[in-house]
Amino acid sequence: MTPAPAEAVGIDVGGTKIAAVRVTADGTVAARARCATPRRTADELVAAVAALVARVRGGRVAAVGVGLPGMVDARTGALAFAPGLEFARAPLRELIADAVGLPVVTDNDANAAVWAEYRLGAGRGHDHLVLVTLGTGLGCGVVVGGRLLHGAHGFAAEASHLTVEPGGPLCECGRRGCWGAAAHGVAIARLGRQAAAARPASLLARLIGEGRSDAGEAVTEAAHGGDDGALEILDRVGTLTGVGLAALANLFDPAVLVVGGGPVSAGELLLAPARAEFARRLYAPGDRPPVPVLAARFANDAGAVGAALLAIDRSR
Amino acid sequence: MTPAPAEAVGIDVGGTKIAAVRVTADGTVAARARCATPRRTADELVAAVAALVARVRGGRVAAVGVGLPGMVDARTGALAFAPGLEFARAPLRELIADAVGLPVVTDNDANAAVWAEYRLGAGRGHDHLVLVTLGTGLGCGVVVGGRLLHGAHGFAAEASHLTVEPGGPLCECGRRGCWGAAAHGVAIARLGRQAAAARPASLLARLIGEGRSDAGEAVTEAAHGGDDGALEILDRVGTLTGVGLAALANLFDPAVLVVGGGPVSAGELLLAPARAEFARRLYAPGDRPPVPVLAARFANDAGAVGAALLAIDRSR
Repeated sequence: MTPAPAEAVGIDVGGTKIAAVRVTADGTVAARARCATPRRTADELVAAVAALVARVRGGRVAAVGVGLPGMVDARTGALAFAPGLEFARAPLRELIADAVGLPVVTDNDANAAVWAEYRLGAGRGHDHLVLVTLGTGLGCGVVVGGRLLHGAHGFAAEASHLTVEPGGPLCECGRRGCWGAAAHGVAIARLGRQAAAARPASLLARLIGEGRSDAGEAVTEAAHGGDDGALEILDRVGTLTGVGLAALANLFDPAVLVVGGGPVSAGELLLAPARAEFARRLYAPGDRPPVPVLAARFANDAGAVGAALLAIDRSR
Repeated sequence: MTPAPAEAVGIDVGGTKIAAVRVTADGTVAARARCATPRRTADELVAAVAALVARVRGGRVAAVGVGLPGMVDARTGALAFAPGLEFARAPLRELIADAVGLPVVTDNDANAAVWAEYRLGAGRGHDHLVLVTLGTGLGCGVVVGGRLLHGAHGFAAEASHLTVEPGGPLCECGRRGCWGAAAHGVAIARLGRQAAAARPASLLARLIGEGRSDAGEAVTEAAHGGDDGALEILDRVGTLTGVGLAALANLFDPAVLVVGGGPVSAGELLLAPARAEFARRLYAPGDRPPVPVLAARFANDAGAVGAALLAIDRSR
């Protein structure tokens, strides 16, 4: 048994950008870097990851963890499928390990995020935990009995196609109502642009009209400023989030549920309606202990920090 | 460590009847008995269970397993909630152990059923397994990494309120579309009676008119005889079952899915549409190994046999 590395690099490969952090065993981020995601080929992606590792790497880094936006084979660490990348079935764990010369752990990005929250975040101390991240899509990771739920192949915790809004927006799968089409960061941004177009004199329209690059952040800011349309969007997305959380709680019976991703910066404007709908949908709520719905501690760092912690924990 | 009991008694407490079996470690049913379910008080239920144990018990029985139709506290074995019983929050494990003078294990009935299929049935050899039973309602049990999924409290694997049919029949929860309202044994019986009323000259109407006590069995028999209405019912319920199975496969990533309960006697008339819809709904089916949808081996014995096997395994 080798001693645990004092530090690891964590990488979060997203659909548009890659974030890298150097993390100590207590979760402190000691360095960070980022770049755009090369989506065309595995080789370009690996080169970008290796360059980020070189930028944040310090002398005490002994392992690298990588969160990937798709299905990761739990046995080999290969990428099996990623909807936002133009390639798939790439042996990314091996390729990255060869490129950086360190042991590498790969996993799904939401699995990495739930690991961060389980080990050092909002889910600390609870061996049964469900996390959802509201981002470009809907990510989900589950801890069962203190271990990541991988399932038979590594593809577990895919919650995007749970029906949360019958008749809702069209999903990439060709059906309506899927959680992954109705309620996440990009959905908030889309609803925000629609609301701004419908009410050009609103605070929300003004913020979006100022060329704010992220319409989702504009929704949160406008809602904090009392904009009715923005408040309505957060209420709606929060409610749909509660529908999905209740389905997950009924199936996994977690001690706590954690919600991460950019929209959580809206705080109670999003979480209060989520909790209310969750309580309405949870099976037999009066006959079980309460199940708290908490904001993620690591916010947008959860994927990268969790990937680093996975690398630290697996090398122990 | 005591040696494993050579035999155990397994009890399956249903909403209308209680089934008891004496089971050897290889799953053979050596004796069986049944009685109506006393639903009013815990004491009456315990007395009925104890009487059944006395009837099937042999000299080599060293433990009793009991499957209960509701939420069972995994730590204490107490019943927390059962929709079909008029009492709840009863310390049934303790009460039954006192009454029979043997070690007792209690668990949810579908958990017991998946354990039977995992240990000796259709899921044998697979450490990741999901079972659904189509009966009075919709039961679900999950094995993760060779262990029953209990969650934080014992209440995991509640799949009844997953939305499988937006706009479907009204569920006891007050909403429409729930799996537990749309697709199980009782739903087949209800649809069968409706179809018989609509087509009084049909084979199905004739079978139901003959006073067959179980309209669900009449649907299966009429479908095997070519009755269009009956075939349509099995196709519809099979399809809805496939919707739910896909949601469970996306979340749990099992190696196999097992379908149990009376309606499975319809065979491919039910399972073929289930498999077809499952394949349409599974996430990224082309990028993962196939996930077989199998009929349960133990049929209506799964709950009782699985409860006995749980008792045997936990006393090891």
